[in-house]
Amino acid sequence: MKIHDLETPALVVDLDTMERNLQHMADYCHRHGLNLRPHTKTHKIPQLAKKQMKLGACGITVAKVGEAEVMTQEGLDDLMLAYPLFGAAKALRLGVLLERARITVSLDSEESLSWVAQAANGKSIDVLVEIDLGMRRCGVRPGTGAVKLARLIDSTARLRFQGIMFYPGHLRPDWNGNTRRLEQLTLDLQRQLDLFEKEKIPVRRVSGGSTPSAFHSHCIEGLTEIRPGTYIFNDRNTIEGKTCSREDCAATLLTTVVSTAVPGQAIIDAGSKTFSSDPLRPGEKRGFGLVKNYPEVQFLSMNEEHGYLKVPAEVKLEVGQSVEIIPNHICATVNLHEVIFGYRGEEVVESWIVKARGKIR
Amino acid sequence: MKIHDLETPALVVDLDTMERNLQHMADYCHRHGLNLRPHTKTHKIPQLAKKQMKLGACGITVAKVGEAEVMTQEGLDDLMLAYPLFGAAKALRLGVLLERARITVSLDSEESLSWVAQAANGKSIDVLVEIDLGMRRCGVRPGTGAVKLARLIDSTARLRFQGIMFYPGHLRPDWNGNTRRLEQLTLDLQRQLDLFEKEKIPVRRVSGGSTPSAFHSHCIEGLTEIRPGTYIFNDRNTIEGKTCSREDCAATLLTTVVSTAVPGQAIIDAGSKTFSSDPLRPGEKRGFGLVKNYPEVQFLSMNEEHGYLKVPAEVKLEVGQSVEIIPNHICATVNLHEVIFGYRGEEVVESWIVKARGKIR
Repeated sequence: MKIHDLETPALVVDLDTMERNLQHMADYCHRHGLNLRPHTKTHKIPQLAKKQMKLGACGITVAKVGEAEVMTQEGLDDLMLAYPLFGAAKALRLGVLLERARITVSLDSEESLSWVAQAANGKSIDVLVEIDLGMRRCGVRPGTGAVKLARLIDSTARLRFQGIMFYPGHLRPDWNGNTRRLEQLTLDLQRQLDLFEKEKIPVRRVSGGSTPSAFHSHCIEGLTEIRPGTYIFNDRNTIEGKTCSREDCAATLLTTVVSTAVPGQAIIDAGSKTFSSDPLRPGEKRGFGLVKNYPEVQFLSMNEEHGYLKVPAEVKLEVGQSVEIIPNHICATVNLHEVIFGYRGEEVVESWIVKARGKIR
Repeated sequence: MKIHDLETPALVVDLDTMERNLQHMADYCHRHGLNLRPHTKTHKIPQLAKKQMKLGACGITVAKVGEAEVMTQEGLDDLMLAYPLFGAAKALRLGVLLERARITVSLDSEESLSWVAQAANGKSIDVLVEIDLGMRRCGVRPGTGAVKLARLIDSTARLRFQGIMFYPGHLRPDWNGNTRRLEQLTLDLQRQLDLFEKEKIPVRRVSGGSTPSAFHSHCIEGLTEIRPGTYIFNDRNTIEGKTCSREDCAATLLTTVVSTAVPGQAIIDAGSKTFSSDPLRPGEKRGFGLVKNYPEVQFLSMNEEHGYLKVPAEVKLEVGQSVEIIPNHICATVNLHEVIFGYRGEEVVESWIVKARGKIR
């Protein structure tokens, strides 16, 4: 079957491009002695997580216990839950997973620590203290707070303090002040590591990373592991962030023009329930995707099942015609699809169920 | 089980409020002699569609063939596909559904008409011509184009021209110029109906409606049917559009605070994969939901699994605490959830699988 025979809208992946992206990141990490622990929230597909493992990943990352359940069911056995655990139900569910996987959990509060301790229930759990190196989301500020939490972890039965984690989501190569931010992050991290050393608490793992900052990771001294997710597919945000080119975007939406009734406009059969409403970052009002092969056509607005293309007079888009679009944010897009299709050349050769889709708990 | 014992994030529905919303719309339509054909894209749940039928709906509306498949599988037997049909696969799938349901299709082009004709395959299909009464999305401009399409439908075996449909998404009570827009729409519709009368083509159905415009429907002469969707739950957009009050919002997100590491901020365990990124309309940058019981707290930004609440000094939100939020756009939110929970008082008494979730084809 050719990709253009697929019913639309369809999320399709150019396997050659995807494999090149995977290899590129694996090579980078290998070259710089960094462990790669890909965030699987981007694809939510166990088979792709296994592909990442085969290429040398040390384990995978998930955000929610529900994602961890899907991944361990399919045999993934070294997971990091990069999200603070809360509540009796989640502690119970995490405890069950310890039967079949090595789990690392990150946290930034004593409250979460008490739930992780409850989850352990006879098994051991590796714990990283999340510190805030400028993102201003989760994480204790660098300093004695992290040391205090580390001591508390080590004094808790079955829990092992392994090191620290941070999410450098504020580092984006396209943003002004990025170099200064990277320097500040490196400085703050070094101070934190010095503090741990002074206190004689060994820090075995320092986990950072994200796709936009990934290829700057070797500049951050002390880092042992990165957790990028988007790099497997890339998207319009990654292009804008100057971390990839248009040719590195492996995942696109195939859509069909369903109405040209309004002059200068074409309506496609895909809107916010197919693309997500995620804006291009930073800033907004710059549309919802890049229209391949029609650089003059702008994808400026959406309803749930309708995408509005602004079509200049010199371009002719006809009803029934196929239009291919690179989405703004592939992680949000994948999460809307039951299945995605892999192709080589023009031939559809694979399909995957997005098994962890909707696993928000 | 009490709602606050549910694992978070959870989408919960106050059944008393939902039933009041359903009754309110049913009463309005009954009072004004309008047929109610609710758009099920909002809830995507067959049991709720059946509830709407029990309250007197003449049938239901769907956007995609995949939604129609789910609904007919569960016994719904009078559906309108309010979306132009394209392609051999969709024609085949629609044809199968004709075995068990009466189907109306709307369209605005000869190309789509040819696919609908192919779908009929021995059965009959009611067809509405979509006209554009100001929304500037799909639909032929009022005038002779609609008449020409109507004749073409009637001259096609198995297809029956039944009337016209439009989507008045540009009518929103909160917008300046709404009264003028409503008058213009009524005038354009009347001219179109006069034209059909002059041409001696009977127009049996005139289908309009949307939640923001629903309670203005009696002002639109000639209208026989409306297709609102959101009214079953309502949302922050409906409040802003002055079509409901905060007390009429039946569906809310239960979330938990997972980090308060950054002063003046609380992070909840729900972001764009739980709420969707749909902005408040019109305009943007006004946050992603209304925080119930904490009017001073603003929900200003999100990542995929993190919601950022801006918390003023006088409010104390603690890690582990439950926070309930009315989302901007409930249709996009529901589509992200595998299951939603119904409660009365504080007691969870029902749960529904969102069966048509992700049915984008």
